[in-house]
Amino acid sequence: MLEPARTVAELKELRSLTGDAEGAQRVCWTENWATARTWFREKLEDLPVDIETDEAGNLWATLAGDSERAVLIGGHLDSVSNGGWLDGCLNVLAGLEVLRRIAGEGRPSATVRLVDWADEEGFRFGRSLFGSSAVSGSLDPDEFRILRDSEGASLPEVLAGYGIELDRALEAGRELATAAAYLELHIEQGPVLERLGVPLAAVLGTYGVERHIVRFRGQRAHAGATPMDMRRDPVAAAARFLLEGRRIADESGSVTTVGTISAPGGIVTAVAPVCELSFDQRHLDDPTLHGMVATARKASERIAAEEGVEVEWAVQWRIAARPFHPELIGFAEAAIDETVGTVHRMPSGALHDAAEMASAGIPTVMLFVQSLHGLSHTKEEDTRPEDLEASVRALDRLAAKTIDWVSTR
Amino acid sequence: MLEPARTVAELKELRSLTGDAEGAQRVCWTENWATARTWFREKLEDLPVDIETDEAGNLWATLAGDSERAVLIGGHLDSVSNGGWLDGCLNVLAGLEVLRRIAGEGRPSATVRLVDWADEEGFRFGRSLFGSSAVSGSLDPDEFRILRDSEGASLPEVLAGYGIELDRALEAGRELATAAAYLELHIEQGPVLERLGVPLAAVLGTYGVERHIVRFRGQRAHAGATPMDMRRDPVAAAARFLLEGRRIADESGSVTTVGTISAPGGIVTAVAPVCELSFDQRHLDDPTLHGMVATARKASERIAAEEGVEVEWAVQWRIAARPFHPELIGFAEAAIDETVGTVHRMPSGALHDAAEMASAGIPTVMLFVQSLHGLSHTKEEDTRPEDLEASVRALDRLAAKTIDWVSTR
Repeated sequence: MLEPARTVAELKELRSLTGDAEGAQRVCWTENWATARTWFREKLEDLPVDIETDEAGNLWATLAGDSERAVLIGGHLDSVSNGGWLDGCLNVLAGLEVLRRIAGEGRPSATVRLVDWADEEGFRFGRSLFGSSAVSGSLDPDEFRILRDSEGASLPEVLAGYGIELDRALEAGRELATAAAYLELHIEQGPVLERLGVPLAAVLGTYGVERHIVRFRGQRAHAGATPMDMRRDPVAAAARFLLEGRRIADESGSVTTVGTISAPGGIVTAVAPVCELSFDQRHLDDPTLHGMVATARKASERIAAEEGVEVEWAVQWRIAARPFHPELIGFAEAAIDETVGTVHRMPSGALHDAAEMASAGIPTVMLFVQSLHGLSHTKEEDTRPEDLEASVRALDRLAAKTIDWVSTR
Repeated sequence: MLEPARTVAELKELRSLTGDAEGAQRVCWTENWATARTWFREKLEDLPVDIETDEAGNLWATLAGDSERAVLIGGHLDSVSNGGWLDGCLNVLAGLEVLRRIAGEGRPSATVRLVDWADEEGFRFGRSLFGSSAVSGSLDPDEFRILRDSEGASLPEVLAGYGIELDRALEAGRELATAAAYLELHIEQGPVLERLGVPLAAVLGTYGVERHIVRFRGQRAHAGATPMDMRRDPVAAAARFLLEGRRIADESGSVTTVGTISAPGGIVTAVAPVCELSFDQRHLDDPTLHGMVATARKASERIAAEEGVEVEWAVQWRIAARPFHPELIGFAEAAIDETVGTVHRMPSGALHDAAEMASAGIPTVMLFVQSLHGLSHTKEEDTRPEDLEASVRALDRLAAKTIDWVSTR
C-alpha cells in the first residue's frame, strides 16, 4: 500500500542526515553524497529488487516484471551546495515509495526500474547531467576530462575515487536496451503553480535554449562635449535591444533573459565604447525558437544601424527543445486529475535528466509539484506537505498507467 | 604686431621638447612639465613683464597698465599622459602672443596678466583644477592631502619638491585682488564646430553636472522557469530608465550619459538581482538641470513600480553651472565675427579653469576653436593651422575689447 506520508518522513530523515543550517549538502562526488547513497541503498535492500551501479555511477534498482520492457522512474540524490531539501531527492524517494507499492502487489506486468542519476547538478565541476547524458550517449568524455573543481582536483581523478572510469562512462548506455518509458517527478522551481493555486502539473517538455553574447560597439565620446545626436552609444543600443527582446518573448508566449550586462572600458564621464549582454531565449518548439533568434538578430541590426554602432553575436550555448511523449502527457494529466481534480500543463524552463531520456528517444514525461515562492537551489526551497503527498500519489498513478501501456503495446 | 604663425611654430617647438611618439607628456609635477615651464619662462623674459609663481604653483606674467585693474588670460601647460599637442598650451601660447602685441604698443590702459595654471588636468593625482581652485578659494586642502599617485607618492610631498606647501595654497587667492576679467581660449574637444563647418565659437559657460549612481534592485529568478509577467527584472528597468533619460536630455536640448552599467551578481541563466548605472546629466542652467534630475528621478520611480523593482539614487558628483559674463560673451562674438565672419555660441560640456574664475565672481568668457574629429586627450587631437591662427587673432581682439571695457568701467 502506498504511504505518501512515509516519503515526507524519509525526506526529513535525509535532510537530518546530510543537511545543515545552510541547506542540503549532497554535492555529487563528496562524502555526504556517498552517505546519502548508502542510506538509500539500505532502504532498497528491503525490496525484491536487483541493485547495481553502472559505469557512469548511476544507481539502478530493478523490479523484474512479466515483460522485460521497463518503465524507468528517475531522480537524483545529489544537490547543489546549500541547496533545497526537495530538489532531486523528492523524485528518488517518491519513486522508492511507488516501487514499494508495486512490489507489494506481486510481480508487475512490466519491469520497473528506479534510477538515482549521478551528478545531475554538476555543482563540483560546473557541468550538469553527467549520469543521464552518459546513458543517453550525448556525453563527450573529452569535455569532462579537462574539468577541475575549485581546489584544482581533476574530474577523472575524483571519479576514479568512486570507481568510475571516465572513458567507460558511455558503456552505461546499455541500461536503455530495455527502456520503454521514463517518468520523473520534480518540484517546479518556479512561481507558476503557486500563482495558479494548483498543486500539480503535467510537463510538456523542456525548453530549447539559444544563448548568445550580443556585443554593441560604439565610439567613446566626451559626456559633456558630444551632443546627443552625434553619439554612437552602445549602451543605449543595448537598452533598446533588450526591450525588443522582451517584446519578442511576450509575442511568442515564452521567455528571454538578459542576466548579465556590462560596458567594458566604460567610465562615468564618457559615452562607453562597448556594451555587451547575455541573451538567453527559450521555447518548447525549436522552429519557433529559431524564429525568435532570427527576429531578435534582425532587430539588433536595425537598432545598431539607427544608433550608428556595430553589433555582433556569439553563440554561448544551445540545446534543442525536448518535447515529451503525447500519450504519456495524457497519462500524466489523468493521474493528476484523479489525484487532485485540477490539471495544468506547462513546459519546463529548467533542464532535467528527463531531457536526456527524451533526446535518447525514450517516451518521457514529467510531473511538477508546486514550489513555494518559486525558490530553489536555496535552503528556503519548500513545498507544502500535502502537495508532496499528492505528488507521490500522482506519480504512483502515472506509473500504473505507464506499466499497463508498456506491457500491452 | 601680432604674429599668429609664431604661435603655431611655438606649439610645435613645445611638442618636440616635451612630447614623444605617444603624444604630449607634460603631466603636472613631473620633470617634463618643469622643462616646459622653464622654456615658457624664457619666452616671457623677452617681455617687460613681472614674473612670479604663487603659493599654488601658478605662473603669472604681469604687464602693468594705467589701471591696476587687470585682464587675466589663462591656460595650462600641463597635459594628460599621451595627450594632445594643443590642449591647454594653445591657450598659454596664444596668450603669450597677445601679450607681445600689447607690450609692443606701449603701456596698456589696463593691466594684463597671463597665467599658466598648475595641474589643470589632475592626471598624476586624479584631481583636476588644482591651481585655479586654489586661487578661486574652492580648493579644500584636506581633500588633496590624502591623494597619492599610482606609485604611492603623496601629493603634499610631491608638491613640496616644487616648493609648494599645500596648506598655504589658498593664499594664492590674493592674485584675484585686482582681477577684472578672465579670458581663455581652448580647443573645443568635441565634434560640434567641425560638423557646423565653423572655426570658432563664443562659449556661454560651463555645464552644471549632476552625476548619480542609480541602482535597481529586483529578484533573482530562473531564466527558464519564471514567466515574463512574474519577473522583477532590474536590468529591464534600467534599460527603460536609460532611454527615458535620453528623452529628457533631448527635451532639454542638453546631454545625459550612461557610461557604465553592470548587473552585480548576475549570471546568464537567471534574472539579475541588481542593475546599476552611472547617470550623468548636464545643463548650462542650474534650475533646468535640477528639473532634469527631478524628472528623471520621478521616471525611475514610475518604471520601478511598473517593473516591481526598487530604485535608489546616490550622488556621485555635482557641480553648479558657470554661466559666463553677458558683456564678455558679446565681445567674444564680435571678436570672432571680425576674425572669421561666422559666429557660433555654445556651452562647454567639459570643465576648464575658466569655471573656477567664473565661480569666484570674475567676469569670464572663453573662445573655442574647432577640433578635428572631436578628439582630445589623445595624440590624434588636432586642429587645422589656419584655425589655430584665427583663434590667436580672435583672442587678441577679445583682449583688446576687454581691456577697453575694464579701463573705462
